[in-house]
Amino acid sequence: MLKNLEIYTTNCGIKYKNRDDLLLIHFPESASVAGVFTKSSMPASPILWCKKNIDKHQAKALIVNAGNANAFTGASGNLAVKKTVEEVARVLNCHPEEVLVSSTGVIGEPLDFELIIKALQPMVDEAKKNKIEQIELWERASKSIMTTDTTKKIVRRSCQIGSKTVHLVGIAKGSGMISPNMATMLGYIFTDAKIAGNTLQTLLEQAVEKSFNSITVDSDQSTNDTVLLFATNTIGDHLINDSNSKELTQFHNTLDELCLELAKKIVIDGEGAKKIIEIRVENAHTKIQAKEVAMAIANSPLVKTAIAGNDPNWGRIVMAVGKSCQEASPETLLIKIGDHPLTSKGAKHPNYDEQLIHNYLKDNHEIKISIDLSIGHQSSTVWTCDLNEEYIKINKDYRT
Amino acid sequence: MLKNLEIYTTNCGIKYKNRDDLLLIHFPESASVAGVFTKSSMPASPILWCKKNIDKHQAKALIVNAGNANAFTGASGNLAVKKTVEEVARVLNCHPEEVLVSSTGVIGEPLDFELIIKALQPMVDEAKKNKIEQIELWERASKSIMTTDTTKKIVRRSCQIGSKTVHLVGIAKGSGMISPNMATMLGYIFTDAKIAGNTLQTLLEQAVEKSFNSITVDSDQSTNDTVLLFATNTIGDHLINDSNSKELTQFHNTLDELCLELAKKIVIDGEGAKKIIEIRVENAHTKIQAKEVAMAIANSPLVKTAIAGNDPNWGRIVMAVGKSCQEASPETLLIKIGDHPLTSKGAKHPNYDEQLIHNYLKDNHEIKISIDLSIGHQSSTVWTCDLNEEYIKINKDYRT
Repeated sequence: MLKNLEIYTTNCGIKYKNRDDLLLIHFPESASVAGVFTKSSMPASPILWCKKNIDKHQAKALIVNAGNANAFTGASGNLAVKKTVEEVARVLNCHPEEVLVSSTGVIGEPLDFELIIKALQPMVDEAKKNKIEQIELWERASKSIMTTDTTKKIVRRSCQIGSKTVHLVGIAKGSGMISPNMATMLGYIFTDAKIAGNTLQTLLEQAVEKSFNSITVDSDQSTNDTVLLFATNTIGDHLINDSNSKELTQFHNTLDELCLELAKKIVIDGEGAKKIIEIRVENAHTKIQAKEVAMAIANSPLVKTAIAGNDPNWGRIVMAVGKSCQEASPETLLIKIGDHPLTSKGAKHPNYDEQLIHNYLKDNHEIKISIDLSIGHQSSTVWTCDLNEEYIKINKDYRT
Repeated sequence: MLKNLEIYTTNCGIKYKNRDDLLLIHFPESASVAGVFTKSSMPASPILWCKKNIDKHQAKALIVNAGNANAFTGASGNLAVKKTVEEVARVLNCHPEEVLVSSTGVIGEPLDFELIIKALQPMVDEAKKNKIEQIELWERASKSIMTTDTTKKIVRRSCQIGSKTVHLVGIAKGSGMISPNMATMLGYIFTDAKIAGNTLQTLLEQAVEKSFNSITVDSDQSTNDTVLLFATNTIGDHLINDSNSKELTQFHNTLDELCLELAKKIVIDGEGAKKIIEIRVENAHTKIQAKEVAMAIANSPLVKTAIAGNDPNWGRIVMAVGKSCQEASPETLLIKIGDHPLTSKGAKHPNYDEQLIHNYLKDNHEIKISIDLSIGHQSSTVWTCDLNEEYIKINKDYRT
């Protein structure tokens, strides 16, 4: 159980019936916080608000609604954020600037913020009457932020900082970056460790690069993508404010693992996805180059449909490397599916056995593709899912 | 009928039965030639050969096979090209360096060039016995290069150079850049005008940029993409060797139109495609920026599936602009579907009528999306097709 943290959820009726769609997290003693946001030039109103306030690295509350993204809503969108955080601040007795906010759902529809405002005070009052275990509240929290997700996404970890055991809980939503009308990935990680905000920021940026920024379902980036890391500062001898501190080694690794596990849960829940595909590119000149090649493979509909059909169609992987990396050379390119080498000296490997690789694809839920460019010493790994009829069906038939 | 040009086709048995899969075009008096090739770092062996010989801008023959791409075939692939062009040169009594070659089909399988070599002499001998009209031979030529194409692609035009009427014939294959195992776009344009090779090269590069390089089905670039422009130099008072010559104005426009029409035929034949989508981005800072935004929309599976479902899901267009253009601003962004404005001042247009746009999408085969970035004065137009279950089915179930 994390201290200095209260969880509230309710249905405020923005879009869904018979399920919670509003989440409020309260840090009575304030929390350190760090954030990473979408790079879109069309950021939603809540993103603008968070970006303006994140540099203080202090938060008293987080408020999230599902069902409406409050994106591309112009001046009315900014007003909706202002009214929402003001009411949260009134109910929790803090400053509006201490409230972070996220929205996820349909783009371009005005957010009916009155529904949120009306729900806040009763939600908090009700919770004080019925004490519920935090473990149950985390379940509710992870469910309240879902849109087209088919499962809740929650990951728990603990690790040592010095002699103390600290705890981490992460929740996320996202049906693979993309979903009908609701293209958003949200992730929130909470820890009871004592870590300063700017240190959290460094740790979070590194973790996100290797996890949430290394997954793709269809290359589309949302107007609302947000990952926040909160530290409630309740366990530890002193506040740590150096991201390179040796004390943080285990925490750093644990945070990386937790983010990656949450990110992979999003890929696995990619719409219609039946398989998760790990693509590792090794021996590139730079990490950026390695990731570009990995992402070109991960975003190729041809590669993804081949995996959906258990088709060892490695010519499509060659194609994706060829289009994304001018420095690559057929002669030195090595491609493996699972442990099976496919290429050698710019041609098909002499031991290539199509049936063997077909069986590997058919029998495994997690597919590994590895690429050795043999032109440098940097590597990158990304994750995606297969592309099948179900994806099209979900995204095509949503509103009509 | 184009003079100084002979067309031969036959079935040589590389992959297909009961249809031609080999095309030979012979220019007895030599032709001027220009070429544009894939930028892939994994070019097929025929691409390497063409790139080496195109700078001479002179050709006596073009040989094309369908069914095997001779790509990622290592040293044996280069040998296959060498043996093929040597036999063409022997049969036609020219130098191997005067023979251009293309292959399209499966990647990574050795090309059985003996089949081609065996077929060449009988094909030419046979044709001399049975004289066939050129118009029928063009039909055969356009069919012989097909792989998963569902229709032949052929476009004819004529125009004036000075007082003379010159003729252009273009053939192409490509089921939308992509196709199961056979990811290739090939285009060949022939004219009887008298134009020097380096002038053709300039004209072709400009035409390709606005046509074959402005279409996408799924963003995948082939190892074999090739466009060649041949001039048989039989009509005209003198050889034109300045691409800016006023004499060429009409020819230049006609070539642009012909290339665009061929390119659109490829998009329309995109696997499973039911609709062609034209995306025009206006008032960008640079042409490159305009094209990047247009391509981001054209390659977004979310946009393409929405069109497949007649869903006016314009939030997805906002998303694609946001991820591809940092300079764009919601306040100045104007989006239209057909003639219907969707946005105004960073929010939904006050006159937005969802049913109207749904009807427009439902009732039209050619869908127009226009974006006004309002940040500069450059524009770009690209074409793509919708993305539906049929695409997945074709690409997933091909080999297994």
